[in-house]
Amino acid sequence: MLLLRNIQTIFQTETAPLRERVAGADMQVLPSVDDAFLLVENGKILSFGPMTQCPDAPGAQVVDAAGRLLLPTWCDSHTHLVFAASRENEFVDRIHGLTYEQIAQRGGGILNSARRLRDTPEEVLLELAWQRLLEVQRYGTGAIEIKSGYGLSVEGELKMLRVIRALRERTKMPVKATFLGAHALPAEYKTDREGYLRLIEEEMLPRIADEGLADYIDAFCEKNFFSPAETARLIEAGARYGLKAKIHTNQFNCLGGIEVCVERGAVSVDHLEVLTDEEINCLKNSDTLPVLLPSAPFFLNDHYPPARRMLDAGLPLVLASDFNPGSSPSGKMPFVVSLACIKLRMTPEEAVNAATLNGAAAMEISHSHGSIAVGKSANFFLTKPVSSLAFLPYAFGSDVVERVWIAGEEV
Amino acid sequence: MLLLRNIQTIFQTETAPLRERVAGADMQVLPSVDDAFLLVENGKILSFGPMTQCPDAPGAQVVDAAGRLLLPTWCDSHTHLVFAASRENEFVDRIHGLTYEQIAQRGGGILNSARRLRDTPEEVLLELAWQRLLEVQRYGTGAIEIKSGYGLSVEGELKMLRVIRALRERTKMPVKATFLGAHALPAEYKTDREGYLRLIEEEMLPRIADEGLADYIDAFCEKNFFSPAETARLIEAGARYGLKAKIHTNQFNCLGGIEVCVERGAVSVDHLEVLTDEEINCLKNSDTLPVLLPSAPFFLNDHYPPARRMLDAGLPLVLASDFNPGSSPSGKMPFVVSLACIKLRMTPEEAVNAATLNGAAAMEISHSHGSIAVGKSANFFLTKPVSSLAFLPYAFGSDVVERVWIAGEEV
Repeated sequence: MLLLRNIQTIFQTETAPLRERVAGADMQVLPSVDDAFLLVENGKILSFGPMTQCPDAPGAQVVDAAGRLLLPTWCDSHTHLVFAASRENEFVDRIHGLTYEQIAQRGGGILNSARRLRDTPEEVLLELAWQRLLEVQRYGTGAIEIKSGYGLSVEGELKMLRVIRALRERTKMPVKATFLGAHALPAEYKTDREGYLRLIEEEMLPRIADEGLADYIDAFCEKNFFSPAETARLIEAGARYGLKAKIHTNQFNCLGGIEVCVERGAVSVDHLEVLTDEEINCLKNSDTLPVLLPSAPFFLNDHYPPARRMLDAGLPLVLASDFNPGSSPSGKMPFVVSLACIKLRMTPEEAVNAATLNGAAAMEISHSHGSIAVGKSANFFLTKPVSSLAFLPYAFGSDVVERVWIAGEEV
Repeated sequence: MLLLRNIQTIFQTETAPLRERVAGADMQVLPSVDDAFLLVENGKILSFGPMTQCPDAPGAQVVDAAGRLLLPTWCDSHTHLVFAASRENEFVDRIHGLTYEQIAQRGGGILNSARRLRDTPEEVLLELAWQRLLEVQRYGTGAIEIKSGYGLSVEGELKMLRVIRALRERTKMPVKATFLGAHALPAEYKTDREGYLRLIEEEMLPRIADEGLADYIDAFCEKNFFSPAETARLIEAGARYGLKAKIHTNQFNCLGGIEVCVERGAVSVDHLEVLTDEEINCLKNSDTLPVLLPSAPFFLNDHYPPARRMLDAGLPLVLASDFNPGSSPSGKMPFVVSLACIKLRMTPEEAVNAATLNGAAAMEISHSHGSIAVGKSANFFLTKPVSSLAFLPYAFGSDVVERVWIAGEEV
């Protein structure tokens, strides 16, 4: 048993019936308990409440959390955490004025990561990814989705998904695996799009399903990558193997990807840096969650998603890191929350809702993660002594997360 | 004695004669030694060079730095690190759509900090500032300038400068003190500008000089704050008491502040988010250093200083944090260096030059700090194992600085 006492405030507290997600005006509401205790048993939250109701817990490990805030760990629903090498050379190329397209033409971009991944043994990939997982855990991440998509061959994609499976076996945080074979058209199929799509449908998907390696299917629905029609075809192919869809779309262009995803019941559409009012309406009347990834526009082009427009329309928003070596070389969720407030003009409460309970919903684990509720997994962090919740996004350079627990164990 | 062995690369190495600053095309050059050693004695750098020349150092403490980069500590030449309270409530007001001006009208802004400072005992201020100094030291800062300017009264300004003096006595890093009485017009002098200027000239400056509390004088030369003519008058008043000038100017408007500062031999002009070609020319033919503070536009308005235009003109650039509770609530220099590369399109080499040797020059300590040179103070940090120098700004969310030494002692 673990008892945290004198917590200044617990945020994102819930009482039954549990919410599955937060939308619209409610995004502004972050339920909390001041001067509180939290009791943990067998990796789960046994009870919480005001100190006046703090139970005796003989034999429990006791943590005095005076002056500290307690939040559920971040649920980061969009990452590419498995990769072979950082790509800071392309970053320097961009400083020197090359465009993302020119870098791709010189062999950079996703295909660069694919080449390096091919040459990296599975155990090396696993160790690199494990170190990154430990790093983001220190920043307070306690549930994560990880995509393949740097394999772009049957063996490469399987290798990545096996690494994700190995990560899941090593950690107590939930790890969701997404198959992103359609991340880019590999060089070998440059003149044979149909051939690659059939490779995904006829070879990759059956083997992935056989080994039970993925929870979701993804595609990069974007100009020069995959069209909405191709995306639709891939979502349907995934569905035949029991994989729901989480789709990259509207990062640079509005091509119709959102409508295609909503019609096919995608769990989420991710990026949305460009978005029409019609697309907002389409999302409003659906169960598909919009996932915003502000670290990518921070790193690339300052073209941030229209979060306020979406909130005003009543949408539930999700925040995730997009951790990847090309467009978002950071998996630090506290900084994502800062960017959401500084650049997307989300309030601290909206940003925390988006990065916790709604992040859990985008991984379909909001029944067990994403908030402080009796019976949920004991995944939470304590901050350093701070003056208020708003201090977290405000102090964008400071490491405010101090101690992190996953399934009741301090990590 | 301290011997660091097997350092992957030492950056910013110098051999006699030492450079005082780096300008123009040379900003791109960052001298380095691969597979190197560094020997420290009595707080100073005794020698460094390739491992093939590594001396025996019997009895020395030995650090194996394989895979790690060594850089001189950051020289942060512009901070407001002494303040009474964070101001995240104003940050939330801005999210809700209030402008900086409206916030000031509601009693926010610099006058808010002044009010809180007045009510905070000197020893509390000192302890708060000391914790911030320890925090930025962990991020690799090893020399710092700190301004007054939240006092805005004789006693308030003296209190701040005494706190800065006490910080200097506690730490082994150089601490420069800047008197910024002309940070804003205090409420009591709202209708009596002349009265406040005379208070600065006739009461504050003599007492500050008496107690030897400041190294520099500063003023906020900006619309609604102090005019170029008033700034000129304050620079001249400071000079009568032996204080050189470091001046806030061109943050929001080009009013002529730069010309005034250059004509009067200011050590630096700081901010420069807006800048005409004539002003660049004016700086080019001077010893006045341009100091860029990208964290402030990151936090406020994305209006970054035109660094490339200045570099193309051959100027030496300086980077500093502007750590303060209103417009830059972060003193994290690695993030400043990241912003310089991501947003100002400076190369990693230019950014490191700007944040080390040129930062030292902006505090007039480049004879003893800001580079790895025999005889200079042993202020340096080791990174985690990383693939290249460019990884530091690229991995904007990661804490890459691992171990920090100030005057030869690990902190």
